[in-house]
Amino acid sequence: MRFSNLYAPTTKETPKDAQLPSHIFLTRAGFIQQVGSGLYNFLPMGKIVFDKIRQVVKEEMDNAGAQEVQMGVVSPADLWQESGRYSVFGKELLRFSDRKENGFVLGPTHEEVVVDMVRNRINSYKQLPLHLYQITTKFRDEARPRFGLLRGREFTMKDGYSFHASQEDLVREFNLMEATYTRILERLGLKFRAVEADSGAIGGSGSKEFMVLAPNGEDDIVVCDGCNYGANIEAAKRAKKTTTLEAPQANPAKFHTPNQNTIEAVGAYLHVDPFYTIKAVIKKAVFQDKEAVVVFFVRGCDALQETKAQNACGALELTDATAEEIEKAGLIAGYCGPIGLPEGVEFYIDQELEGEANLICGANEQDYHWVGVKVASFKPSRFKDLVAVEAGDCCVACGGKLGITKGIEVGHIFQLGQKYSKAMNATFLDQNGKAQPFWMGCYGVGVSRLIAVMIETSHDEKGCIWNLQTAPYAVEIIVSNTKDEESLAYAVSLYESLKAKGVEVLLDDRNERFGFKMSDFELIGFPYAVVVGKDFKEGKVELVSRKTLEKEGMGIDVVEAEILRRLV
Amino acid sequence: MRFSNLYAPTTKETPKDAQLPSHIFLTRAGFIQQVGSGLYNFLPMGKIVFDKIRQVVKEEMDNAGAQEVQMGVVSPADLWQESGRYSVFGKELLRFSDRKENGFVLGPTHEEVVVDMVRNRINSYKQLPLHLYQITTKFRDEARPRFGLLRGREFTMKDGYSFHASQEDLVREFNLMEATYTRILERLGLKFRAVEADSGAIGGSGSKEFMVLAPNGEDDIVVCDGCNYGANIEAAKRAKKTTTLEAPQANPAKFHTPNQNTIEAVGAYLHVDPFYTIKAVIKKAVFQDKEAVVVFFVRGCDALQETKAQNACGALELTDATAEEIEKAGLIAGYCGPIGLPEGVEFYIDQELEGEANLICGANEQDYHWVGVKVASFKPSRFKDLVAVEAGDCCVACGGKLGITKGIEVGHIFQLGQKYSKAMNATFLDQNGKAQPFWMGCYGVGVSRLIAVMIETSHDEKGCIWNLQTAPYAVEIIVSNTKDEESLAYAVSLYESLKAKGVEVLLDDRNERFGFKMSDFELIGFPYAVVVGKDFKEGKVELVSRKTLEKEGMGIDVVEAEILRRLV
Repeated sequence: MRFSNLYAPTTKETPKDAQLPSHIFLTRAGFIQQVGSGLYNFLPMGKIVFDKIRQVVKEEMDNAGAQEVQMGVVSPADLWQESGRYSVFGKELLRFSDRKENGFVLGPTHEEVVVDMVRNRINSYKQLPLHLYQITTKFRDEARPRFGLLRGREFTMKDGYSFHASQEDLVREFNLMEATYTRILERLGLKFRAVEADSGAIGGSGSKEFMVLAPNGEDDIVVCDGCNYGANIEAAKRAKKTTTLEAPQANPAKFHTPNQNTIEAVGAYLHVDPFYTIKAVIKKAVFQDKEAVVVFFVRGCDALQETKAQNACGALELTDATAEEIEKAGLIAGYCGPIGLPEGVEFYIDQELEGEANLICGANEQDYHWVGVKVASFKPSRFKDLVAVEAGDCCVACGGKLGITKGIEVGHIFQLGQKYSKAMNATFLDQNGKAQPFWMGCYGVGVSRLIAVMIETSHDEKGCIWNLQTAPYAVEIIVSNTKDEESLAYAVSLYESLKAKGVEVLLDDRNERFGFKMSDFELIGFPYAVVVGKDFKEGKVELVSRKTLEKEGMGIDVVEAEILRRLV
Repeated sequence: MRFSNLYAPTTKETPKDAQLPSHIFLTRAGFIQQVGSGLYNFLPMGKIVFDKIRQVVKEEMDNAGAQEVQMGVVSPADLWQESGRYSVFGKELLRFSDRKENGFVLGPTHEEVVVDMVRNRINSYKQLPLHLYQITTKFRDEARPRFGLLRGREFTMKDGYSFHASQEDLVREFNLMEATYTRILERLGLKFRAVEADSGAIGGSGSKEFMVLAPNGEDDIVVCDGCNYGANIEAAKRAKKTTTLEAPQANPAKFHTPNQNTIEAVGAYLHVDPFYTIKAVIKKAVFQDKEAVVVFFVRGCDALQETKAQNACGALELTDATAEEIEKAGLIAGYCGPIGLPEGVEFYIDQELEGEANLICGANEQDYHWVGVKVASFKPSRFKDLVAVEAGDCCVACGGKLGITKGIEVGHIFQLGQKYSKAMNATFLDQNGKAQPFWMGCYGVGVSRLIAVMIETSHDEKGCIWNLQTAPYAVEIIVSNTKDEESLAYAVSLYESLKAKGVEVLLDDRNERFGFKMSDFELIGFPYAVVVGKDFKEGKVELVSRKTLEKEGMGIDVVEAEILRRLV
């Protein structure tokens, strides 16, 4: 391609609201164009990168035996009503009506549609397993679209859905997909971790996220310095916390603790480390059919992890309870404890507290705490994993030290189980001729998001730095002075020769200043440039590496061989 | 691919409401699945065909120098308001609001978005011409979705938009696109005509449709038996109609014609051929800002072409005027003529009547007609092309005989001119440094529609008949009895050998009756099948052509060479 024909409108203007390098540089370098809040067009170079990433994803999915299909952008609302998600999915699900007032959604995900695609068509265990995937446009009406392609409203995902006759076979496919996603991200040249994750609105049990390590990542991920363990902060586990401090042995007694209504205060007042206290976190929970105050108890030295808390009680949403709501529930702020709670108040206790003794907690009475408390005689369902793992906690797998780092989620694989097949009555006949709901998995890769991730993980202050796997062109030939006919003729011959050898090469033949073309090269970030400049008279050109910006003079007789060597 | 792994759920059930072979067979053979009114999913084989067609379109567009981009499915309403189409586009434009009550549309076409993509980025005539295209999902909220993929609501189109510094350059690109579309349809193996067309809601002047000839086509197209001339019925022209009958010479006079309120009646009453009469067709026209009765005058022997009439008066919509509306406008049904119409009544006269004499028309008075009328003294803008061309009319190009045939529109190319660039203030600086609106063209191919067209033009009573260019697999190997290990082993070896040679081959290894597998072959319609059956013991197999259903026995030593020969 000649740059004079390519539509790659570069600009020095930084888009307003853009903070992240990928957002700024992809826009400035003419890969994408914003058309509305969270809506982006892909310009020609953006489309080339998009197609390269899509091709890698497609090849690996096909190699894994999955079959590509295409479902609509528009899905009938009745399928979402059948699964029950129409009412529980938040405002991110964009709902609308057609001219006949029939309800539809813009599909953010396609579990319902794919179940409808398969039910009554797959009838026997003999036709299983089956894995269908698509690479299509999705829509989520995000409350705060931001970060360019990283959190847009319209985006492209590879979403795959697998159907199995047994949970064991689902686990096999889940592991196959973990290997497949690993290959995809390795082929794209990304540094990543597969981490344990919360299943969120998709549902099901058992899920892993693929997190590309990036300082600007939105997600906190917990990684072990001793082993492979990694988890999203929302799903991270730790070895049970211990202490070398002596426990405050005491018989159960109610203590007067006037105005000691924080963990720190009561700990200091009673000369006890917060490890031996129980903290109450009071939340208002929104359920599908009601709202209620729910209390979560964790050690005084720990913090509540909100997603874990939400999963524990099955709420759609949690918010901080107001003073009024706390009072109305019969609770006393600062003095709330698991013993003697007002009847009907829902509560959960962190699992690490089960069976622990010599603890201090609120007495549900103004200015009083219990000491010498043993956490026993609660039913097992009260105990849940509620704590936020922190740097320095110990690894549940190896005992090593956990750290927290930033990541960008680019993939998510789920063991859905039978959630959707049961809700939508999608069954097959097993070996005994008995109807069984399908076991299902689902697997997503953010294809358009990956374009941004490539740059988020590889840029400098001047612009993008593409790797060879995803660059729109591998080499750019820059003619310093296009009016010099000999320079131009040589550049064209090198361009034609490289093209004939299958190299993706761009010839910057624009009648512009050299400095302008060079800063376009730095902004766009092709891996290599060949500069045909002043030294051409002496039979020399410069080979520039975008990554290092090092310029290497070499003879015109060797530069093609050198390029071909570097592209291997 | 092995059939036992392929998701191709065939069925004997005809989908309800399906009338056309493409709709019936693509559904029954497991290429597509209906998910809602006018909404279809593509199953794996449908996706393969889809990708093949898309690839042909992409290659030819790239060869023509166009650059692929990707615009969103969702477009902001404000861009449509800017062009003025938000209010004039009918209910087919699906409008909706997001969570913040901002307006959006599901894009049925992308003139507005592409103008926004280019304006303020292309600044100089030096950067022109430019042609951007995309192959993406579109949505039209059709009043009556029908015929499967032929008239769905969600569909995939290749839509390209070109920008030029002059009308001449636009015409050059238009001709290039005509050649490009011709190559695309030839590569797909389709019989078609490029015909002159009305520009409809897209606007602009000068457009051609690519019509695939098919007996079930929705469109009437006019073709000449003497030359290349072809046109959509809405845009068809003819040589001026003449007659050998003598004209009813008369001085202008008002004639009493009681109860002669049809052309046939008045013609018979006055012993005059309808050729020498003027027929009035009274319509109610909906304009952007008002509704009004409009009268169209054509020869008594001609019929009014509604689209031509609508274009003549610039209405958004025409409907038959009711008796009440006719009376309210001061018109007398059956006696309406161009002379002495009530003041303020808008009217148009067919251009073939200009200057004609010795005609009879209504006198705008109950029971009276004028005779000896000469159509003169009207201003030129009253005369428009209004008649519906009929079989037997003469070709405007060569005088040959016109016929009417059925076609399916698969492509449409437009010279838009400056309609959108003017409305949206998208300009470039010309050679004199003066700002000029872009000259624009737009060019569409119905990619998903072409899948149906392949079958609409190639099927029999048993099912689809794919050609080699678009078949999901070129050859199917059918093992008559999969329990016969030697047969199966041979089939697998032939399958592997063909695959290694790059043949798209499907192995039907399903443990099903031979008859079942054979009728799947006939329904799905792969070009060839190799049947490994009873004669395998004698070293023989059968090669079946789907088109003819002829079976040809041949030795297992020659069948592979024979297949390779046929696939060339």
